[in-house]
Amino acid sequence: MNSLTHNSQMMPSVPVSSDAGVVLAFDVGGTDMKVGLVVGDLGVASHEVLDLQRHRTPLDGARSGDTVCARIVELFHEYAQAHPQQKIAAVGVTVPGIVDEINGVGIYSANLGWQNYPFTATLTAALGVPVAFGHDVAMAGEAEFNLGAATGKSDVAVLVIGTGIAGAFFADGHRIQGAGYAGEVGHALVPGPDGKLVILESLASAGGIARRYGEACGTVVGGARQVLERARAGDVTAVRIWAEAVDALAFSVAQCVAMLGTNTVVLGGGLSMAGSDLFVPLARRVDELLTFQRRPDYVPASLGENAGLIGSALKARSLLTGGTLLTGGTL
Amino acid sequence: MNSLTHNSQMMPSVPVSSDAGVVLAFDVGGTDMKVGLVVGDLGVASHEVLDLQRHRTPLDGARSGDTVCARIVELFHEYAQAHPQQKIAAVGVTVPGIVDEINGVGIYSANLGWQNYPFTATLTAALGVPVAFGHDVAMAGEAEFNLGAATGKSDVAVLVIGTGIAGAFFADGHRIQGAGYAGEVGHALVPGPDGKLVILESLASAGGIARRYGEACGTVVGGARQVLERARAGDVTAVRIWAEAVDALAFSVAQCVAMLGTNTVVLGGGLSMAGSDLFVPLARRVDELLTFQRRPDYVPASLGENAGLIGSALKARSLLTGGTLLTGGTL
Repeated sequence: MNSLTHNSQMMPSVPVSSDAGVVLAFDVGGTDMKVGLVVGDLGVASHEVLDLQRHRTPLDGARSGDTVCARIVELFHEYAQAHPQQKIAAVGVTVPGIVDEINGVGIYSANLGWQNYPFTATLTAALGVPVAFGHDVAMAGEAEFNLGAATGKSDVAVLVIGTGIAGAFFADGHRIQGAGYAGEVGHALVPGPDGKLVILESLASAGGIARRYGEACGTVVGGARQVLERARAGDVTAVRIWAEAVDALAFSVAQCVAMLGTNTVVLGGGLSMAGSDLFVPLARRVDELLTFQRRPDYVPASLGENAGLIGSALKARSLLTGGTLLTGGTL
Repeated sequence: MNSLTHNSQMMPSVPVSSDAGVVLAFDVGGTDMKVGLVVGDLGVASHEVLDLQRHRTPLDGARSGDTVCARIVELFHEYAQAHPQQKIAAVGVTVPGIVDEINGVGIYSANLGWQNYPFTATLTAALGVPVAFGHDVAMAGEAEFNLGAATGKSDVAVLVIGTGIAGAFFADGHRIQGAGYAGEVGHALVPGPDGKLVILESLASAGGIARRYGEACGTVVGGARQVLERARAGDVTAVRIWAEAVDALAFSVAQCVAMLGTNTVVLGGGLSMAGSDLFVPLARRVDELLTFQRRPDYVPASLGENAGLIGSALKARSLLTGGTLLTGGTL
């Protein structure tokens, strides 16, 4: 019972007062790291990110766990000095890759270089406050599930579609962790247009769409948005590549429905900005692929690009309430 | 927190004494219904099915919920009379189709005819003992997960491969319910040999294998076992159809791994009797389909064809310990 979700169900009966202190939340990416103070009573869906900053992620190959933690400690003290009126009571950290939340370990990140790095232990010792550690998209999913687009739903797939695709799956009101290996839907197989098996994100991520269009036309486009604009203008190659992306995404959504009973699909990330050009054909294609199964609802993510920060703050805040909101050994 | 699994984790600390009474368990199928007394301390993996009987399932179209319940009540009284020394303290019932365990409702069964039939309420009123109601393969999965092949594992897919294919998925030590819609892996899509999308069980079930071989050769074979024997003897059509079944199954296992972090695959049902002819090429093909993901272990189901009875008895037994083993509203 280590996931945040198990416990956040209890939040309404255990309101967290704002004098419990604020959370300093970090969202560490392959290029940049975001940091901000998350204030407000997260249990009742009001929250605010103060003094949001973006810094370069200090990478140093296999030593990147150390360099990233050192930078987090440095920024913690800078925020404490800059905001003496805010008591930083806990820290939330999200990273990409394979994350063992229960033991607080970054198992593996191809982009950032670490293997089995003990983030929670390192940061807790250095900072002296509780540290919540999680996967970036899983924490964004927690935020959408608890405070955002999927509030009140039980069987939810949160798909974040940007350069790649990652997911957070919830079943029966719990996030599926799979020891850190769940949710890697971007690397799930789909049948490609030529019948070969490829990974979902090669066809359906914003990065994949732009790359495939560029390869098909021998030109470079700025991104998936430009492919969509050309498709709207009638460019047949753009229309085809967009449709193939939707087909691939529909295939994976249909897998979630068949295997998990997914009933709500939250779409976030850059590609979700396509709006009805994505949502309408996706729902139609999923419907074609299903038979007796429930048809899911499709909703856009509502918390924007700070969902990861908010989710990690939510998890950090749950640490502050001790065993009440967090049973089990996430720390 | 309504699933059995959430609570069975606690079983070792709450041993169920045998004087708590026995469970009369029913496994209702499309043709036959099995019934037997399940005795023994299920919490420590000892159990025995006494006076196992098989009866015709009394079907009557849309009224089949009523006729099946009436037959269950009849058999309950027969067992009570025939075994006066055994106190039947609870009843477990499993059915196929879409099952809402939490509300005790058979939502839908194509083969048995009911829609939204209130099994738990009907039987509890008629029998005066607690009734545990569940999906047949889900309960078989619970038995394998708690007492059988997957004991001690957290992230498990139990695949029962017979005439069709159904699954029970466990993540983080909990069975995924999805309001009764989870686990329908037999109806999940896979790319077929000709590139078209088909449902898994059309290629990889014992029924599908026999049918496809018959269509390819213009002959009728007794079953998948015969196709396997012909493949072993070098029949190229049988070899191809067996390999396509393994490929399809591997595709679905790889989906589970990517999405759920599945780490243990339990294979049950008739097709699992193929042994290394199934397990070895399946593991090899899944390995080819994965990249950074954990490779699952493959284990044969260990409880045999009574797994469903045992699982439903396990769930019924958990009702007897009241709130201790079963929190939430499964009744």
